[in-house]
Amino acid sequence: MTAVAGGALDRLREALGEVSDLERAVEVLVWDQETNMPPGGVEDRANQTATLSRLAHERFTAGEVGRLLEAAEAEVAGQPDDSDEVRLVRVTRRDLDLRTRVPADLVAEMARAAAHAQPVWHEARASSDWLRFVPAMERMVELNGRLTEALGYRERRYDALIEASEPGLTTSRVEALFAEIRAAIAPLVAGIAANAGRVDASLLDRPFDERRQLTFAVDTIARMGYDLERGRQDLSAHPFCTSFGPGDVRVTTRTGPTLGDSCLYSSIHEAGHAMYEQGIPRAFDRTPLCAASSSGVHESQSRLWENLVGRGRPFAEWLVPRLRAEFPESLGDLEPEPFWRAMNAVRPSYIRVDADEVTYNLHILLRFQIENDLLEGRLRVVDVPEAWAAQLQELLGLEPPPHSHGPLQDIHWTDSLGSFVGYTLGNLISAQLMESVRRDMPDLDSCIAAGEFAPLLSWLRDRVHRHGRKLTPDELVERATGSPITAGPWIAYVREKFTALYGL
Amino acid sequence: MTAVAGGALDRLREALGEVSDLERAVEVLVWDQETNMPPGGVEDRANQTATLSRLAHERFTAGEVGRLLEAAEAEVAGQPDDSDEVRLVRVTRRDLDLRTRVPADLVAEMARAAAHAQPVWHEARASSDWLRFVPAMERMVELNGRLTEALGYRERRYDALIEASEPGLTTSRVEALFAEIRAAIAPLVAGIAANAGRVDASLLDRPFDERRQLTFAVDTIARMGYDLERGRQDLSAHPFCTSFGPGDVRVTTRTGPTLGDSCLYSSIHEAGHAMYEQGIPRAFDRTPLCAASSSGVHESQSRLWENLVGRGRPFAEWLVPRLRAEFPESLGDLEPEPFWRAMNAVRPSYIRVDADEVTYNLHILLRFQIENDLLEGRLRVVDVPEAWAAQLQELLGLEPPPHSHGPLQDIHWTDSLGSFVGYTLGNLISAQLMESVRRDMPDLDSCIAAGEFAPLLSWLRDRVHRHGRKLTPDELVERATGSPITAGPWIAYVREKFTALYGL
Repeated sequence: MTAVAGGALDRLREALGEVSDLERAVEVLVWDQETNMPPGGVEDRANQTATLSRLAHERFTAGEVGRLLEAAEAEVAGQPDDSDEVRLVRVTRRDLDLRTRVPADLVAEMARAAAHAQPVWHEARASSDWLRFVPAMERMVELNGRLTEALGYRERRYDALIEASEPGLTTSRVEALFAEIRAAIAPLVAGIAANAGRVDASLLDRPFDERRQLTFAVDTIARMGYDLERGRQDLSAHPFCTSFGPGDVRVTTRTGPTLGDSCLYSSIHEAGHAMYEQGIPRAFDRTPLCAASSSGVHESQSRLWENLVGRGRPFAEWLVPRLRAEFPESLGDLEPEPFWRAMNAVRPSYIRVDADEVTYNLHILLRFQIENDLLEGRLRVVDVPEAWAAQLQELLGLEPPPHSHGPLQDIHWTDSLGSFVGYTLGNLISAQLMESVRRDMPDLDSCIAAGEFAPLLSWLRDRVHRHGRKLTPDELVERATGSPITAGPWIAYVREKFTALYGL
Repeated sequence: MTAVAGGALDRLREALGEVSDLERAVEVLVWDQETNMPPGGVEDRANQTATLSRLAHERFTAGEVGRLLEAAEAEVAGQPDDSDEVRLVRVTRRDLDLRTRVPADLVAEMARAAAHAQPVWHEARASSDWLRFVPAMERMVELNGRLTEALGYRERRYDALIEASEPGLTTSRVEALFAEIRAAIAPLVAGIAANAGRVDASLLDRPFDERRQLTFAVDTIARMGYDLERGRQDLSAHPFCTSFGPGDVRVTTRTGPTLGDSCLYSSIHEAGHAMYEQGIPRAFDRTPLCAASSSGVHESQSRLWENLVGRGRPFAEWLVPRLRAEFPESLGDLEPEPFWRAMNAVRPSYIRVDADEVTYNLHILLRFQIENDLLEGRLRVVDVPEAWAAQLQELLGLEPPPHSHGPLQDIHWTDSLGSFVGYTLGNLISAQLMESVRRDMPDLDSCIAAGEFAPLLSWLRDRVHRHGRKLTPDELVERATGSPITAGPWIAYVREKFTALYGL
């Protein structure tokens, strides 16, 4: 990115660099809290993240950035609309407008509340007791209510949260997408339920050495394109990806004793996120452009690698011989076809991260509705388990789960509301992108079967990663695929794959 | 610590808390860099530590803290001289006076230079090539020269560095202590050299399983009093201890294949540091009192546990049966007496951290002289290996070492000059304290032999740890032992122990 040395844009980038350094440092503190921190560190860490978050917010919203931004806007006027400079200024203006609406105290309160809520959530989940989490969750709902008031919204509180994470989308558009998905999926789910016996998932229960599965997973994602010179994998209660800059993008995972609950597919998922972050140009570093277009676009990358690549038939051709060679004691007789079928078994279940591709979006719909009801005061926090159970019955036909397998399964509510929608948008976008990839790369399947992932990664680098945050989700998807975000390609993909798999 | 709510002292503590949060966050970033960070993270991490260090410095030296401090000084006037409030204000005044002398830019430059120098040092050490480190070291000498100019000094540049880390001490007092040590030690070293055969250290070459040695070391320091609920141990190139607050004090170590180069004694050393930090009262948290009295006093705690406890005859009584039980394959026949003798073998050697108690201070004297010569322009950075070799010959009678075992062995010069002196002061103070412990606890040896470390830890908590930074080194040592820092007790301790061991 070029700019007049000493000009307003240059000085703006200096100021934004400081803000970025503070924000990245917070990410390091949070990563450490989740992976390494001893129990005694909670109190100090809460103070540290709160102070750094508040300083980042203050320095961004203090007059200096605004003044430099105004001058930079004048400086770049007339430059091409697609130039890095114009987009940097535009994205910064958008962030500044959003953030100046949020008081610094609220930012600090939310950071402190999140740091306090995390250990409480770990305890509540361990004892499967929603009541232990209720005070922290009530605080979260209250703070998010204040946040939506501060941000402003047209009709629905949720609009404020969506606009912040998915610029251009609204609650009603998301509701329409969900309605389309639900209508298309319901008959598929029913058809599968009537023919559940046609897919045997029992081999997922085979033992899978926990220490070696971790090594195997790291090796797998490295071969898929995750650069370990600029990343690492650690253990945490809830898998996540975090970036401290394009040169240090980390993933975490958790292991389990069987093939089915191993860390393999969560690793591929997080590596999908990480390859996105690793593909953002160094030139965007320490600016607001050095990030994903949105949570949904971020999730499209993890979904694409996890599901559209990782759960595809060609991937099994590549993976299974490696599994056989590395785990001869329990997987010596594994074959691609039954592995592929087992990995795609559709089973309505309690845990979102373990859900199959068909029912996954229903888990998101459930959370989306509960969050809306909490924010709009139609549901009390203490009643969440009941509401959860009712919707689980309606959407997936399941009995009420223990709290640890219900509303306590996700870490997200320790930190924010509204973040789940990105997962469904990610599913939709991943299918849209993949449709285009297949048009451009007719030999994609044989590449994947041969373990050649570089051409696919290169396509994604070009159409998605290299833009960082220059494009909005709809802009990015439209340029890459020819249409804005829609549910059609995902519905077609799922219908075709699972109709064939279950012989419907 | 009590204070009028809303009074100047209260508001001062708020402001100091923010500075502390920033400084602790830098410690987390540095810890991560040394233990976890992938190579690609260097550039961003350098920016992050530089920005946070600079912000901490700016916020501390900006007018706000000074104004609140002035008001707080008035507020506490007349309170007892030993009260937490008076001492907090006094220590803060001292820090502010020192730090306002250092420009914020210099602080940021030093942090950035340190972050850049660390990977260079790792590479230079790996290839044993001082030349690769020369540019980074020249930068460090230049920056430290500017630092001493900014801090000011009476006669010697080094005075500025010593006053900053060891309030009350001067270069000439340290030189006098070194002269006393050298005069007393020279005949001892000669006597030992003539009778080197009397101590057999060969059992230190026995194999010592690297993974299990780590577990054994953690278990050992936990039994000695290091609280793992408020800490953890990781691997790094150079062992260190770091505190993110009294609730999260971490140690690092490195392992080796034999008993002699295992992580055991480095773990005990760092645990000595860590127990000090863990013993600082919560009430001092997020203030300048929440730290050690000085680097030398800090080092007295690591030395006391490593040497005066860990290398003592009673400790062998406790440790050896545990070693026998845990490592029967290589240590099944170990006995306390030969282990104790081997652990105390005096062998002039190249590596400071492996040096015995007798010759250790000579390694420090060598570095102290080289740093002085560099700062005062009598020595060029490129000539350091030669100067090193000459002094090594004179002090220890050794041939020139490879650079990796010479001036590249320590990480310290990636970060600062002047920090080695604290090690010798630590040795002196540890012996002074132990003399007093023995007066107060005549049964100390039998406690240690039985693995009962709580009484000793409790004595140290009371005389050292609980004061945090309330007392200067001389105040602390004088209150605990009856005299300011002197070399006498250490000389007596070493002379008695090693005269007996070698039958001189």
